[in-house]
Amino acid sequence: MSEVYLKRRARLRERGVTNGPEAALVCGPANVRYLTGHGGAGAVLLLGPGERDSLVVPATASDQPSTTPEGPHLVRVPAGPERPADTALAAVELAVRQGAGRLAVEEHHLTVSRYRELGRVAEGLQLADLGAVVESQRLTKGPEEIAALRIASEITDQALGELLESILVGRTERHLALELERRLVDHGADGPAFPTSVATGVHSGVPGHRPTDRRVEEGDFLSVRLGAEYQGYRCQIGRTFVIGSAPEDWQVELYDLVFAAQRAAREALAPGAPYQSVDRAARQLLEGAGLGDRLAEATGHGVGLEIGEDPRLAPGGVGKLDACVPVTVEPGVHLPGRGGVRIDDTLVVRPEADGGPELLTITTKELLAL
Amino acid sequence: MSEVYLKRRARLRERGVTNGPEAALVCGPANVRYLTGHGGAGAVLLLGPGERDSLVVPATASDQPSTTPEGPHLVRVPAGPERPADTALAAVELAVRQGAGRLAVEEHHLTVSRYRELGRVAEGLQLADLGAVVESQRLTKGPEEIAALRIASEITDQALGELLESILVGRTERHLALELERRLVDHGADGPAFPTSVATGVHSGVPGHRPTDRRVEEGDFLSVRLGAEYQGYRCQIGRTFVIGSAPEDWQVELYDLVFAAQRAAREALAPGAPYQSVDRAARQLLEGAGLGDRLAEATGHGVGLEIGEDPRLAPGGVGKLDACVPVTVEPGVHLPGRGGVRIDDTLVVRPEADGGPELLTITTKELLAL
Repeated sequence: MSEVYLKRRARLRERGVTNGPEAALVCGPANVRYLTGHGGAGAVLLLGPGERDSLVVPATASDQPSTTPEGPHLVRVPAGPERPADTALAAVELAVRQGAGRLAVEEHHLTVSRYRELGRVAEGLQLADLGAVVESQRLTKGPEEIAALRIASEITDQALGELLESILVGRTERHLALELERRLVDHGADGPAFPTSVATGVHSGVPGHRPTDRRVEEGDFLSVRLGAEYQGYRCQIGRTFVIGSAPEDWQVELYDLVFAAQRAAREALAPGAPYQSVDRAARQLLEGAGLGDRLAEATGHGVGLEIGEDPRLAPGGVGKLDACVPVTVEPGVHLPGRGGVRIDDTLVVRPEADGGPELLTITTKELLAL
Repeated sequence: MSEVYLKRRARLRERGVTNGPEAALVCGPANVRYLTGHGGAGAVLLLGPGERDSLVVPATASDQPSTTPEGPHLVRVPAGPERPADTALAAVELAVRQGAGRLAVEEHHLTVSRYRELGRVAEGLQLADLGAVVESQRLTKGPEEIAALRIASEITDQALGELLESILVGRTERHLALELERRLVDHGADGPAFPTSVATGVHSGVPGHRPTDRRVEEGDFLSVRLGAEYQGYRCQIGRTFVIGSAPEDWQVELYDLVFAAQRAAREALAPGAPYQSVDRAARQLLEGAGLGDRLAEATGHGVGLEIGEDPRLAPGGVGKLDACVPVTVEPGVHLPGRGGVRIDDTLVVRPEADGGPELLTITTKELLAL
């Protein structure tokens, strides 16, 4: 497995991030994990001159990385007398000792204060911006990454499926959310990929609703959003159900509309499709129904080691989809005072010849009356 | 309640953060919550010229703040065509329109990329560093903050107490952690204050151990660390138990030693006591027993709206305790291959005349055999 990381680091170097006297410091936790397999807190990766890669970790961390011949050189940093182990500072000092002339850092992961501190120890070293090159390399996923997302999605479907078999009326949003998270772990998740959202009645359909003590009642819409993290990879599913024997007309109409929008966006997923066009496919249907001002800012986003990765499927999203990019498609509508519908799937973009987009979250999208 | 926030903002202004033509932008989420009561994602606070305070929030956020006469002016920022609602950028533009000449920003909360973006729209506006003035104002807690911490601690004690009454042998660390988190919410917590740690057998005593599928066995040490978040305030408790009828001699000895160290540090808590001296009280006892190289970097830290706040009770911690500063005291020892002991409490520093430190987490620290 550690060969995968070696290849990823080699690919990053091929992109020229450490040409000549240059070195690069990778600080973003998901970026460090992507390039080394190590997800421990405080770890940073130095791509030094002469292809010397160093994984710099706090000496007292409880999850110490294991070393392999293909792995980066391991540097353990003890705590200083006045502060915790400062791995980024240690990495900059190491770059100086290795004779680097320029050090590219991730300006979008370093605070201004941190940057100034690093600048003070970087004697004779010029700091430059590495930008989001690691994030951009992470966009298209390898087979081992997609395999992890498949398992995460399977776990998520199982957890949700079990909930649907239980009695829901009378239980609070908070308890349902906790139960879903427990079931994710039961089925092998490292943990939830993000805080589980359970929204009932007037809360249903609110994007990112945080569970409250409201109890599920007859006639409610119930919208849930959850996802498992498996080997660091995070997926997302969202479904909306109706509680009781028969949904009301407005519920059926709203559901059908959001479902049609969600399907349109899923069908727009293809290599070469502009991010905007996926968003537009869903948005124009909902705007046509007069719900344009009820829509979220985006229709979907990439998933992987983080739950909200590039690309951003939104009106202003710039770029085109590639094969093997996993994304969510998650339109939703909330009508204040009444409730709403959200339907989220995680899919992998695939060419037509491979059968089109691969749906990872396979729980039914029929409007179930529970 | 909103008068509390008004007073906090007035106190901040008294410290001179917005003298003359200056304005200040507060971005740290806990800082914004402390000064406005609003904890929603993406919210920032602009302390503008002429005592004009503006709370800038994303227009599409699900938890919109309520406005009151004492509250700051509310500004809702819609999403741009190419990106989500950018509240910090909108606040900088607002500061320009309000005629501010200098804008102090929290350089420790802004990434370098963010800072450069803000600089580009801050025409005619000089950016300065606000530093950690809000954090430093948050150090000493008001009565309403300590009241919230007391309730958080009560909830935490209840959740832990219930776990102790259940059968533990054969259950996994993961499940025990989830059960504890469920019980926290049952008793009224907003959620866990931090990821619950449950460590059994050889894992016990590892700082920040992440729960695994290891099951509790007879003879194990079992160390748990958990805390409730209540109205945004977070506490922490840690306890170590032994599983089975009788602990072994080494277990009793190690427990007694850590307990003595923890008590020594608790007794060192007093207004005026240097941070270092609290750490030293625990550390010298453990070093005397030859365990100096097994200790964590710090013996404790402040708690409040964040779980790891100032002060830092560590060898290099610079400063002295004040009354009404809540801190943890949490020494621990882990012996690789055997296990270990951690004992964490949350206490509020009080003068001798008020009875000394107020212990918030009151679960027994006797070595219980479960």
